[in-house]
Amino acid sequence: MGGVRPPTRTRLAPEARRTQLLDLGVRLLATRSLEELSIDVLAEEAGISRGLLYHYFGGKQAFHEAVVRHAADDLIAQTAPPEGGEPLERLLASVTAYVDYVIANHAGYQSLVKAAASGNDVLREIYEDARSALTGRIFTEDPWGDLIPDTPVNRLIVRGWSAMVEELVLAWVADPADVPRDRLLELAAGSLPALVESAAGPL
Amino acid sequence: MGGVRPPTRTRLAPEARRTQLLDLGVRLLATRSLEELSIDVLAEEAGISRGLLYHYFGGKQAFHEAVVRHAADDLIAQTAPPEGGEPLERLLASVTAYVDYVIANHAGYQSLVKAAASGNDVLREIYEDARSALTGRIFTEDPWGDLIPDTPVNRLIVRGWSAMVEELVLAWVADPADVPRDRLLELAAGSLPALVESAAGPL
Repeated sequence: MGGVRPPTRTRLAPEARRTQLLDLGVRLLATRSLEELSIDVLAEEAGISRGLLYHYFGGKQAFHEAVVRHAADDLIAQTAPPEGGEPLERLLASVTAYVDYVIANHAGYQSLVKAAASGNDVLREIYEDARSALTGRIFTEDPWGDLIPDTPVNRLIVRGWSAMVEELVLAWVADPADVPRDRLLELAAGSLPALVESAAGPL
Repeated sequence: MGGVRPPTRTRLAPEARRTQLLDLGVRLLATRSLEELSIDVLAEEAGISRGLLYHYFGGKQAFHEAVVRHAADDLIAQTAPPEGGEPLERLLASVTAYVDYVIANHAGYQSLVKAAASGNDVLREIYEDARSALTGRIFTEDPWGDLIPDTPVNRLIVRGWSAMVEELVLAWVADPADVPRDRLLELAAGSLPALVESAAGPL
């Protein structure tokens, strides 16, 4: 406080370093489950001491939470729909990014789903927040308003649809069964308007 | 061995008693999570000793597995589609039974989903087997053949759809948000033909 050193630099440096470590953690999580991502693994990959990592993250649980939160932010940023275009094209672009993310980060994503379901409250909250951000965007982004009116039934549909898309991708990664990726993308994106339309009309 | 007592009766009696205890376990699971369903709780409700329950089930883990397997068999039996009728009517009847089962057994069902996701291999296997039985029925039951041709894409759709229906019901139980049960049922059953149809046509 009141020192002569530029405060922004001294405060930013550890934060930037922490972000760098989180980026590395997220990359490692692509091919590892959460259980396999230990402080030891990160220390070795980052070439720094376990002690320093504990200094940055406090402990294994806090480290996992920070990495998963960082991964969730990544996912939300990467799946942002493009600015312009037709509603269905933007939905397809967003779903494509989601599907590609899950394919590329399969091990870590699968383990997050497990952790969220198994009763780790913090990880479940991160998972639920990410899912809410992804699905809520469908209603808050202006152009979707025309495609999907914001009603309780459509909120329920979008929530069910997001569970379906997650299951579709995880099942497809485990066993593609000759279904090409483009077909999977069509299923994932095309199913939402189909569901909304079928729910709006008579059974 | 070689005794004079009728062997069927002496062998059947403990089995019938075990089934009775499993029925009770399944009933208790309707309003309890698996963690809350202990040998102690069952012993108290059944009015018999813990020792006898250990004799029947071997231990807590084996007891939970036996109860969940019994519940899964129950679910599969209760959701069998009716013999006659139109394909869509039969699907609606089957889905209605599923939705009502999950509503009535919400706590136990939710905890099974958690246990299956969290890495308990036996419970996951029971869960996956039940899901396979429920979804596979859509293809093996003759009349559905006309509604949903058995293709890799449709197998994937049915799998995604079953995850969606599960999510729809669990989300609806947690917060019905003014959506009536009939609307939920229409969504759950009507969505499958809509998904298959939309996947068959151009995007």
